[in-house]
Amino acid sequence: MTERRHDRTFVRSFFTSPTALEGEDDSAKMIRSASGLRGMQAPDVWVPDNEDATAPSMRDEGVANILDVVAENGAEFPGEIHPRIVWHRDRPETRHRGLKHMLELADPANGAVDHLDGFVIPEVGDIDDWKKADEFFTIVENEHGLDEGSLAMSVIIESGEAELATGKLRDEMGKDTNNLERLFLFVDGEVDYTKDMRAITPAGDLPSWDELRHNTSRGASANGCIAIDGRYDDIRDVEGYRERMTENQSKGMLGIWSLTPGQVVEANWSPLPPEKDQWLLDDGREQVELEDEDGVAVYDGDRVSLEDTDEEYVLRVDGDERRLASDELTDELLGMVEYVPSMDDIVDSMEEFERARESGTGAIAMERATTLRIDGVEVDLSTERMWDEATYQASMTPVSLFQDVYEHRPDQHDDLAERYGENVVERATDVGT
Amino acid sequence: MTERRHDRTFVRSFFTSPTALEGEDDSAKMIRSASGLRGMQAPDVWVPDNEDATAPSMRDEGVANILDVVAENGAEFPGEIHPRIVWHRDRPETRHRGLKHMLELADPANGAVDHLDGFVIPEVGDIDDWKKADEFFTIVENEHGLDEGSLAMSVIIESGEAELATGKLRDEMGKDTNNLERLFLFVDGEVDYTKDMRAITPAGDLPSWDELRHNTSRGASANGCIAIDGRYDDIRDVEGYRERMTENQSKGMLGIWSLTPGQVVEANWSPLPPEKDQWLLDDGREQVELEDEDGVAVYDGDRVSLEDTDEEYVLRVDGDERRLASDELTDELLGMVEYVPSMDDIVDSMEEFERARESGTGAIAMERATTLRIDGVEVDLSTERMWDEATYQASMTPVSLFQDVYEHRPDQHDDLAERYGENVVERATDVGT
Amino acid sequence: MTERRHDRTFVRSFFTSPTALEGEDDSAKMIRSASGLRGMQAPDVWVPDNEDATAPSMRDEGVANILDVVAENGAEFPGEIHPRIVWHRDRPETRHRGLKHMLELADPANGAVDHLDGFVIPEVGDIDDWKKADEFFTIVENEHGLDEGSLAMSVIIESGEAELATGKLRDEMGKDTNNLERLFLFVDGEVDYTKDMRAITPAGDLPSWDELRHNTSRGASANGCIAIDGRYDDIRDVEGYRERMTENQSKGMLGIWSLTPGQVVEANWSPLPPEKDQWLLDDGREQVELEDEDGVAVYDGDRVSLEDTDEEYVLRVDGDERRLASDELTDELLGMVEYVPSMDDIVDSMEEFERARESGTGAIAMERATTLRIDGVEVDLSTERMWDEATYQASMTPVSLFQDVYEHRPDQHDDLAERYGENVVERATDVGT
Repeated sequence: MTERRHDRTFVRSFFTSPTALEGEDDSAKMIRSASGLRGMQAPDVWVPDNEDATAPSMRDEGVANILDVVAENGAEFPGEIHPRIVWHRDRPETRHRGLKHMLELADPANGAVDHLDGFVIPEVGDIDDWKKADEFFTIVENEHGLDEGSLAMSVIIESGEAELATGKLRDEMGKDTNNLERLFLFVDGEVDYTKDMRAITPAGDLPSWDELRHNTSRGASANGCIAIDGRYDDIRDVEGYRERMTENQSKGMLGIWSLTPGQVVEANWSPLPPEKDQWLLDDGREQVELEDEDGVAVYDGDRVSLEDTDEEYVLRVDGDERRLASDELTDELLGMVEYVPSMDDIVDSMEEFERARESGTGAIAMERATTLRIDGVEVDLSTERMWDEATYQASMTPVSLFQDVYEHRPDQHDDLAERYGENVVERATDVGT
Repeated sequence: MTERRHDRTFVRSFFTSPTALEGEDDSAKMIRSASGLRGMQAPDVWVPDNEDATAPSMRDEGVANILDVVAENGAEFPGEIHPRIVWHRDRPETRHRGLKHMLELADPANGAVDHLDGFVIPEVGDIDDWKKADEFFTIVENEHGLDEGSLAMSVIIESGEAELATGKLRDEMGKDTNNLERLFLFVDGEVDYTKDMRAITPAGDLPSWDELRHNTSRGASANGCIAIDGRYDDIRDVEGYRERMTENQSKGMLGIWSLTPGQVVEANWSPLPPEKDQWLLDDGREQVELEDEDGVAVYDGDRVSLEDTDEEYVLRVDGDERRLASDELTDELLGMVEYVPSMDDIVDSMEEFERARESGTGAIAMERATTLRIDGVEVDLSTERMWDEATYQASMTPVSLFQDVYEHRPDQHDDLAERYGENVVERATDVGT
Repeated sequence: MTERRHDRTFVRSFFTSPTALEGEDDSAKMIRSASGLRGMQAPDVWVPDNEDATAPSMRDEGVANILDVVAENGAEFPGEIHPRIVWHRDRPETRHRGLKHMLELADPANGAVDHLDGFVIPEVGDIDDWKKADEFFTIVENEHGLDEGSLAMSVIIESGEAELATGKLRDEMGKDTNNLERLFLFVDGEVDYTKDMRAITPAGDLPSWDELRHNTSRGASANGCIAIDGRYDDIRDVEGYRERMTENQSKGMLGIWSLTPGQVVEANWSPLPPEKDQWLLDDGREQVELEDEDGVAVYDGDRVSLEDTDEEYVLRVDGDERRLASDELTDELLGMVEYVPSMDDIVDSMEEFERARESGTGAIAMERATTLRIDGVEVDLSTERMWDEATYQASMTPVSLFQDVYEHRPDQHDDLAERYGENVVERATDVGT
């Protein structure tokens, strides 16, 4: 892989804020407020948005506002700062305007460039269009005496062409005629993508675009970039936002767009392991969390019931009844439960595997046991999982993310310590390094 | 994007009819009957099929039949006419035969070419195979004094190679050595694709091929072409055909293959907005349509029940019971309903947004309210949706399709007016233009 | 398609066994045991695994063990033998070590090469990395006087780059500077792929990676290779392994990795048609197999009930009740049942179609009839399916697989005859050829 310059190897939250709105007394108020975010409310990447979130007639004022606020508050801002400028694959006048805005924002005379980490380019087209944007970055860097490639370029994937470009980038990156190594984030933009693909849904909802998210994530993985999912417009639907993130994480897309500081908090916590371990039970429709009562995992829903006649057990799951002997019951329940390890558990297991590996053992069995209680009937369950080098490496992903956060976001140390405890935080920063 | 010649930017229905069958008294009877279709029964694209639907030994006769019928009735046919000829990526003799058929069909001496809009090429392989077909079109055009690129080329995607080619086309289109700008429809052919991929299902059903449909739609979008889904063989299963189309539309694939005039009618209406708005309720399994009784949306199924004790509400959804206060109930129900706007509603909202935009406002809230009745208990619901430029643009897709239909299919004006009313039709043709 | 050398056009099972483990008395014991597998327990492709399944410090000993065992037992082994060597797209020292192991394994002086069909290369990257591996094969062949391209190369797809390479291979295969025609199996490696994509799931399960499997299968199809799904670690979960294979088969991925002789047996049978036909009924949640009692298909579950009042039928499906007249009931039930043909049925239908085709008929209707019994109420059902050339060709896939097995695995003839009967086996080997 060609050498990349960017410090962050994980980005959880991509927070956009308007830079200028019509009718505002103080157009800079909103970005000033964004620049003051700290801790879990502060995003990994803050994007003063001079495109969609800003009134078309106010974009020059938007640039001035970014310069003001970033020059003043940029040094203290705990995340990276990447303004989104205007761009369009089909409109040369928009691209030229984007160039002029970049030149102005990066001008050392304007005092903000030291705190700017890069720019976000929306509405990119195919790979040749990405090269045009990259060339403008190079011109800006050269004009202002910055190192070539020092400004990161992030792109919004919101057209079929751009989705295809994520699969072609490896053929182009590293060539002498470009600096595409500056690429940083691949951000899905599902609203405009839906328009570009001319998709229709009955109620006007966004399609789920599974393949787009897969392809974006794969393209990011294959090119050392970071994949970010698009906007989740219903900002009151916290549960839906969380489910979307869980789904994204199973695709390798660990970051997401945030529209509010509340969404930033959710996005920052989501890919981090939970503070407490958790047993789940499949009730025939979905996985439900079991209550922990003194080490007993208690199910108190209606879909699963269990009865112990003296001769056998009667297990009902969502309308299906089965009569089972004791060992059959245990097997059946083992197939229905799942164990979600806490950060503490993950670190424990990794340390245990590391010790085993040092003493020459390549695979060890990790046991997880609990007592499950349904309708007052208690059953002891114990699962074993083989850990080998591959399991260890896969478990490393959330831990590496934690370590990346810990290194780059000292403003979140208190929150992490409060959630996990100092001891777990310390061990999690050490393990696997 | 390179300049394209084709008038239609949307195609809803792709109707194939045999051109010659063994044992027929009059082999031309079936295509003559197809050429007489009008109004909603007439497809956007009619494909006299000289490949699979025609007996292998009768294909020269099929060409003669196409020439007869198109020369006689082509001028009056309200849709475009694109015969499917024979072709195979692995068989040069088939490709040569296809060339000879194209030369004959496009010969001005035979009187049909003025009514032919292009040809459909089945069984294409990778991008080099597409270029071979394109070259034959160019030779045919040159031989018969037609403008280069004037005959449209549509391809059936029924091999892995062809699916991959949809992602490579942008690298080739526009080169001096081809006329690939003639490309028009990308049609999935799932029966042969299944064979080519060697897929097996227990009962011999076709797999759903989600990724193929996504990739076809994306390739069409990235190259200014139009994506069409394949045959739906169970012609009596109207409900299944509709569901397939709804699914396709969420992928940006707005057209579908039709095997009968009945399927053509369904395909022509499907991507157009409904004439009446509709509230849907998620009953825990699926979304059901609510009955409109004097402005009240009434649920009369068995899976959801609602009871108003004096202290609280008891809501049961598919076996799960919840006791809720009034405002909790409203929140819960808001999460369960969805609103499907009518054509009238869509045009209303777009006009309202246009007025707001003209007066300098970039985003407005659109409210939708109804009273929901379950088991006699009535609850007032009101949802708000933010409309910005992106929402407006996305809403434009079905309206643009309507406008394309209105422009190119005067034979359907009466049907449109009958469904939507003259007033709505007029406003829908004006909005957004 | 460029000429390929490999005999097998279908591979059902890809069985890996360790070649050397620490602390073993006899490191060669396990591969010796693998080399003794016969019949349904013997895989189509046996992979003595000198990578992940072998201790890192023991890989030279692993090579020695492979040489010993294959030289001694290779001639009698009924499947192909493809050792997995070490390789990594990012580590030149690993690639060099892989080259040295290949040179040693293929050295005629070591007596094993006559029984080796190729090598498996893990952790490949993009297409240029595949070319490096191919070049090492060529060097090994040249060094040892083997024909160029005579050793097959299989790759483990376990990175985003490699997934993308499956879509680029057609641009490279056939060039004078490589021998990529030696490519044989594309094997998904979901454990390492998950790590490479940095995907996270709450309980540490593997994501389902639908798109990866589609893309691997498509790439194999487009390049004349064979797609194999990755490891299924829970070796006791036979039902889950079977479901995974059924899902894979609908994607055109007919082979799967096996970790035990028990999994090999499952993998070898899975893509072959069943010995008995089977009616399935959709009970509102899933398809359940109906019991055959003297030609009557009997449902004895709880989710569907049927009552014959004298006036009408009352059908209840998963809580939904409908009152139906006799013909409505028949229509409803026809929509709920599905027929899974046996090998005998498939061969019957193909023979019938072949006879019709010879007599000049292009399409015939195949009827399937049964009596369905629910709660003692009996209903006669009859479905018709049109068979044309495309249906015939699609039905050929499992039969071609059967014929490939029959030709290459004489050690399985007894098992096939026992399952299907001599008569069916004979007709199945003749049909369609």
